[in-house]
Amino acid sequence: MGIIKLKNRVCVSAVASVCGKKEYDGAFGELYDEYSEDDTFGKKTFEQAEEEMQRRCFAHALKKGGFDLSDIDAIFAGDLMNQCTASSYGLLEYGRQYFGLFGACSTMAEAVLLSALTVDGGYFKRCAAIVSSHNCTAERQFRMPIEYGGQRTPTAQWTVTGSGCAIIDTGVYGMYVKGVLPGVPVDRGVSDAANMGAAMAPAAADTLKRFFDESGRKPNDFDLILTGDLGGEGHGLLTELLSYEGCDLGADHLDCGMLLYKPEQDVHSGGSGCGCSALGLAVYLFERFKNKEIKNALFVGTGALMSPMAVAQGHSIPGIAHLIHFSSEV
Amino acid sequence: MGIIKLKNRVCVSAVASVCGKKEYDGAFGELYDEYSEDDTFGKKTFEQAEEEMQRRCFAHALKKGGFDLSDIDAIFAGDLMNQCTASSYGLLEYGRQYFGLFGACSTMAEAVLLSALTVDGGYFKRCAAIVSSHNCTAERQFRMPIEYGGQRTPTAQWTVTGSGCAIIDTGVYGMYVKGVLPGVPVDRGVSDAANMGAAMAPAAADTLKRFFDESGRKPNDFDLILTGDLGGEGHGLLTELLSYEGCDLGADHLDCGMLLYKPEQDVHSGGSGCGCSALGLAVYLFERFKNKEIKNALFVGTGALMSPMAVAQGHSIPGIAHLIHFSSEV
Repeated sequence: MGIIKLKNRVCVSAVASVCGKKEYDGAFGELYDEYSEDDTFGKKTFEQAEEEMQRRCFAHALKKGGFDLSDIDAIFAGDLMNQCTASSYGLLEYGRQYFGLFGACSTMAEAVLLSALTVDGGYFKRCAAIVSSHNCTAERQFRMPIEYGGQRTPTAQWTVTGSGCAIIDTGVYGMYVKGVLPGVPVDRGVSDAANMGAAMAPAAADTLKRFFDESGRKPNDFDLILTGDLGGEGHGLLTELLSYEGCDLGADHLDCGMLLYKPEQDVHSGGSGCGCSALGLAVYLFERFKNKEIKNALFVGTGALMSPMAVAQGHSIPGIAHLIHFSSEV
Repeated sequence: MGIIKLKNRVCVSAVASVCGKKEYDGAFGELYDEYSEDDTFGKKTFEQAEEEMQRRCFAHALKKGGFDLSDIDAIFAGDLMNQCTASSYGLLEYGRQYFGLFGACSTMAEAVLLSALTVDGGYFKRCAAIVSSHNCTAERQFRMPIEYGGQRTPTAQWTVTGSGCAIIDTGVYGMYVKGVLPGVPVDRGVSDAANMGAAMAPAAADTLKRFFDESGRKPNDFDLILTGDLGGEGHGLLTELLSYEGCDLGADHLDCGMLLYKPEQDVHSGGSGCGCSALGLAVYLFERFKNKEIKNALFVGTGALMSPMAVAQGHSIPGIAHLIHFSSEV
C-alpha cells in the first residue's frame, strides 16, 4: 500500500468532453466538445443517450489527439448505470480491448490510474479512460424518476449529464502523471442517499492524509488540489476532517462538484456522478495545465459506493477516493 | 492490442473458495474451504450473505497462503450485484486499496489479469483477485425472484453461489502467469436473457482466435483450455464457431459451467455467474497445477454484459472474454 511513483514519462495526451444542456449553460460552456439541447443526443431513452455520450466523447478524443482507433490498445471505462451499460454498449462498436470498472463517481480517477500504470509498465502503448453519468438515468435508478418531481434536500447534489475521456500515453503534451495513490473504501456510517458528500469526504480525507504523511509534502506544495465530486457539503467536511489532523488544505483546494455550474443554476450542494470529475478533469484541470497556469496538482476522484438495495437493507454508504499527482514537468 | 507477455515471475500463490449447498453437493465438495448449509452464511438477506462469502473467502486465502492482511497491497474485486456491493461491503473491513471491476461473469479473469500486470510491473507486491455471485441475489436482480418459481429453459444456466479468491505475487508456487490477452466486447445479436452461453461464445471465439493467430500456437499445445462460464450451450457454440475458422479446440477444452455440478443436479446448460469461473479456477485449475497434472493451460473467463434495462429497451447482449495463459514453469 502506498504512493506509486511512475518510472517513465506518462502523459494525458488528449481529453474530450460531451455534456447536457445544463452543463453547457454552466461555467465552462464553450470548452465542451459537444452538447445536446435536450439531453437525449437524438436517442429514444436516456440510457441510450448516455451510451451515445460515451461513443461521441471517445470519437472527439481520438480526433483531438490525432489518433486512429488502432492507436488505442485498451479502454478503461465505467458509469453509474447498473451493469455499466453506458460503457459496454457505448464503446462496443469501437472493438477495442476493454476493462469495465465500477468505482461510482470515482471511476474517472480509477480509469486514469489503471491506464497510467499499464502504460508506464509498457503493457499498453496508449489507453483511453472514459466515463459518463446522466442526470435522468442516475436519478431514476438511485432515487426517483425526475418526472416524480421530488423535493431535493440542501445536501443533495445534481448528477452531471456528461462524459469525459482522457487519452493516456507516453507523449510530451505537458500534463504528466507523476504518481498515484489508490483509494481504500471508508465507511463512517452515513446512510443518507441525499448526502453523498458526507459519505465521500472521509475517504478523501483518508487518501489525502496518507499521501501527505507518506510523501512529506504539504497542501501548499501544490498549485491545485482538485477533489470531486464532493460538492459544497463534502468540501466543507473534508476541510474540517483534515484540519483535525493538523492539515490545512488552503485556498487551492477546489472541488469539481462546485466548479461546473453557475450559482444561479440551483444545484444545491453541487454536481456529482462519474461525469462530474471527468468533466472537471477535461475542461478545468487539463485546460489549466495547457494554459501553463499550474505546474503541480493533485486530482482526487471521490466515489460513494451507494446501492439503493444496500441502503434499503440498512447499510451505510462507503466512499472511496483515488489520487493522481499531475505535473507539468516530466 | 494483443498478447501481453509478462516480464517477471508472477504466480498464483494461494486460492480460496466459499460456496453454497448446491455447489458443495456438486463435483468438488471436499475442495471448498467453506460452505453454508442454507446459503445464508448466517445473514438476514441473500445480498448480505454474498458479502459474507467474499469476506470469508478472502480470509481463507490469506490464511492458506500464510499472509497477513498487510501483505496485500491491492484488491481487484467485483460481483454481479448492482453497484458491486458484495465486493465493496464484503471487503470493507479489511481496509485495503481497492479497485472495483465490472466484467459480469468474466470478472475473475479481469481481476487476475489486472493483478498480474500490476504485480509484474512492480506496482504492487501482492494483489488479491476476488469475486462472487449468489443464485438468489442474481436471479431476483436479473430475472425473477426464486420464490416466483419460474420455469427455466434448457439453455438457462444456474448462477453459482460462491466466491473465489486468488492471491497473485512473485512467489514460486507452481502456477505462473505467462501472458494475458484482454477481451474485446462482441455482440452478435443474442437477446435471450436465458441463453447467456450464446451471448458469450462469440466473445470467447474472438479472444481465442486472436490468441492462436498471434501466438502461432494451436489448441493441442495446451494441456487444458478452461473457458467459463459458457455452459453446455455456449461450449458447443464456441467449438462450432472456431471450427469454421479451421481451429479444433479438441478434448482438452473444458468449461467451468459444465464442471461444478453433477449431472443429476439439473442445472440445465450449466453453472454461471462470477463465482463460476472463480470456483473453477480455485478448485479445478489450481488443483491440477498443484497436483502436477497439467503444465500449460489457457483460462478464458467469459462474461455476458447483460442488463435487464438494456434488454427491455431492445438491446442485444454483448459478451467479453479475457484470456490468461498459465504455466507450471517460470
